[in-house]
Amino acid sequence: MNEKDPFIVNLEQLIEHHQDEWLADYKTFLSFPSVSSEIESKPAMQACLDWLVNYLKEIQFHVEVWPTSGHPVIFASYLQAGPEYPTLLIYNHYDVQPVDPLELWKTPPFEPTIRDGEIYARGAQDNKGQCFYVLQALKLLIKQTGTLPINIKLCIEGEEEVGSHGLSQLLTAKKQELKADYLAIVDVGLDDPHIPAITLGTRGIITMDVQLTTAHTDVHSGFHGGLISNPLHALIRLLDSLRDETGKITVPGFYDQVEILSDEDRALLSFDFDAIEYHKITGAYPNGGEKEFTALERARIRPSLEINGMWGGYTGSGFKTVIPAKAHAKISCRLVPHQDPQKIGDLVEKFLKDNVPVGAEISIKRHPGEGKAVRISPTARVVKVFAQAYEAVFGIPCQYLLQGGSIPIVPELQEASEAEVILMGLGLVTDQIHAPNEHFGLDRIKKGILIMAKAIELFREK
Amino acid sequence: MNEKDPFIVNLEQLIEHHQDEWLADYKTFLSFPSVSSEIESKPAMQACLDWLVNYLKEIQFHVEVWPTSGHPVIFASYLQAGPEYPTLLIYNHYDVQPVDPLELWKTPPFEPTIRDGEIYARGAQDNKGQCFYVLQALKLLIKQTGTLPINIKLCIEGEEEVGSHGLSQLLTAKKQELKADYLAIVDVGLDDPHIPAITLGTRGIITMDVQLTTAHTDVHSGFHGGLISNPLHALIRLLDSLRDETGKITVPGFYDQVEILSDEDRALLSFDFDAIEYHKITGAYPNGGEKEFTALERARIRPSLEINGMWGGYTGSGFKTVIPAKAHAKISCRLVPHQDPQKIGDLVEKFLKDNVPVGAEISIKRHPGEGKAVRISPTARVVKVFAQAYEAVFGIPCQYLLQGGSIPIVPELQEASEAEVILMGLGLVTDQIHAPNEHFGLDRIKKGILIMAKAIELFREK
Repeated sequence: MNEKDPFIVNLEQLIEHHQDEWLADYKTFLSFPSVSSEIESKPAMQACLDWLVNYLKEIQFHVEVWPTSGHPVIFASYLQAGPEYPTLLIYNHYDVQPVDPLELWKTPPFEPTIRDGEIYARGAQDNKGQCFYVLQALKLLIKQTGTLPINIKLCIEGEEEVGSHGLSQLLTAKKQELKADYLAIVDVGLDDPHIPAITLGTRGIITMDVQLTTAHTDVHSGFHGGLISNPLHALIRLLDSLRDETGKITVPGFYDQVEILSDEDRALLSFDFDAIEYHKITGAYPNGGEKEFTALERARIRPSLEINGMWGGYTGSGFKTVIPAKAHAKISCRLVPHQDPQKIGDLVEKFLKDNVPVGAEISIKRHPGEGKAVRISPTARVVKVFAQAYEAVFGIPCQYLLQGGSIPIVPELQEASEAEVILMGLGLVTDQIHAPNEHFGLDRIKKGILIMAKAIELFREK
Repeated sequence: MNEKDPFIVNLEQLIEHHQDEWLADYKTFLSFPSVSSEIESKPAMQACLDWLVNYLKEIQFHVEVWPTSGHPVIFASYLQAGPEYPTLLIYNHYDVQPVDPLELWKTPPFEPTIRDGEIYARGAQDNKGQCFYVLQALKLLIKQTGTLPINIKLCIEGEEEVGSHGLSQLLTAKKQELKADYLAIVDVGLDDPHIPAITLGTRGIITMDVQLTTAHTDVHSGFHGGLISNPLHALIRLLDSLRDETGKITVPGFYDQVEILSDEDRALLSFDFDAIEYHKITGAYPNGGEKEFTALERARIRPSLEINGMWGGYTGSGFKTVIPAKAHAKISCRLVPHQDPQKIGDLVEKFLKDNVPVGAEISIKRHPGEGKAVRISPTARVVKVFAQAYEAVFGIPCQYLLQGGSIPIVPELQEASEAEVILMGLGLVTDQIHAPNEHFGLDRIKKGILIMAKAIELFREK
């Protein structure tokens, strides 16, 4: 590779010089328990928002807080480059996942703690860490030159973890504010910490709660065992009928619209997977899903259906000889191009209703935040610029990935902003996002600052 | 039927006369949250025990408190009738089931409340109500005549709801104290509130916790969905494989020792069942278990296997796109003569271990309190005496029942006491025992006092 980029070298020095300051700020950001799904976190959500607003105002951004039916959206802009230079819209979110099971955290989730160069906290990566290096890149660029080389807009929402409902409803009204040439969704990651990577697609998502009721009330399993309809028996049978022996989802029509990857796309994308490494990291075998596909195909280009939670009856210590009246499950599907979320949700719902065992009544609640899969062209300028920025920082060529996760707001935000979209980030599968002991590497925070700053610099070139 | 028994008439007057007093005592007994399965209830268990001890001492019983590894046993005796008269040992328990789901109780479970002649509280029936009418019968008999016509021993344990482990371990050491001619287990009920009934058998029980682990940690369902082994998928498949399409348990050997009821026994026993009434009471269909047997056969002379609780993943409000590392279930089997609890437990355990899906590790924990089924001869004197007492109070002949519930201590206590055993009580399937809004009728408390007093009187006759 080439000599190291002097822009990068200078910025690295600046990052080192200010490390105490930015690390303190990062820790403050992580200390807000901004769990969007928990009603009791509302004050923490507001405190986190206030902190961000203040942070952005201090670096001279114009900040607007957009109220929603749920948690507000922060919109901030710095447009001094003027209309002859492009506008980059950057998307992040300030809300985080719940922390349970709390007892599995080695240190409290909202008391950020550094161990071996990794910072442990809920949101350390998803998405406060990835939001923070964006803010830091902007702050350092302004510190260096007094301004920013292109126009920057930031959209930082507070409901990504609960389906982006509020932002979604604002998009039409805020089309003018969100208008941009490029849109960077900074909420994804790398397959390998040493190999730079651009994500060319995500899966879509639908989620629902399923409840089976067989009685008015819980009853004693002595008198009623073998006699009454047990909703847990009904629910396990119903949910098990959703998949066949080969791991295929049995819902009629589920796979009808699924995109078959072209040879061209397949050649560009990496599906490398190390099952031994996977087992080492997760303790798990990669044997979920459809047997006829490879591991990363199943996680990235094939749709899935997972039970994310299930409960019913007595779940405490000891034993209670009860037969419950109700049993519950939470299920989600990940979708690929060109599956329509509404339609797939309807098919799954219909299958469940058609197959509910005799003696049980079903009730299904779809959650907001359904979203389509996203697929991005590798020839777009935004992809090329970010690839160049990644390569400048890592010193080796970029990989192109698809990812299995979902960011339902992406297609909607892309449409509203009319921008070329890219998915970027420095997450790793080992970061334990959505799980106990979430963490993010300080080395990756630094790389993130460099990549984002370098990309902004590159966008100024015609 | 005959003229009303003057003994009953006198006692009825006494019961009415003292109603304020005994109702206050009953409410006090119910107000102790003596939940044996919850470690935090230990002080309440002790307070309940102290109250009982004091109550028994006041009616001149000799009281011993037998410590166990868990909650103590109360042993009380009144032996003034002397060796020429028989000794009746009466069994009750002072512990109760947990109260969850608490939000479904119309009035707080430990604040006894009377509505329409029924008293609502945890333990109102099981077993404090049934214990209380025994105490009251003894108290009123002593009040009437200054003594008791036969020798009475009481064994009131504090661990029935968690398997009677402590009492079980004491039986050999306390054989002499427990020795009796007759043993009344006052913890069962009637099929119809208007028809007196003696219970000639109970089912046995085994209980176990099953845990499947597929990973070190919970993971994100986006990245891992369709890729990783999901323990909830594995658990529903495993548990569903325990029963076939006809409702039969598929565990090899499960039915091998099951007693086939003789035509003689079948003629004596009532298997009447009103499915419409059952649906009205429970809101449920009686379509659990083996399709080839009738409802009450399935509940009383056939073994069952039920999932009593199940949980895993995210179970809170909203949605969390997690794939858990572990999934859990609590299962129990009800056993009939001549199934051996240890052996059936081993068979179920082996089946689960043999059939655990690839990618999941299983761990099984058997709970203490396994117990055999009980079957009593209808020709025993204890059965005849109690049948006569029931008939004197109800004015019509006794039914003979089997019941589906389990009292694991019965066969052990029978062996230790060397007594002829009977199962009696005034519970109804509508009493909501082990469920929210447990209740018991004041009319049945009164009947219970009369039946117990009359039986004691009858035992004195040679």
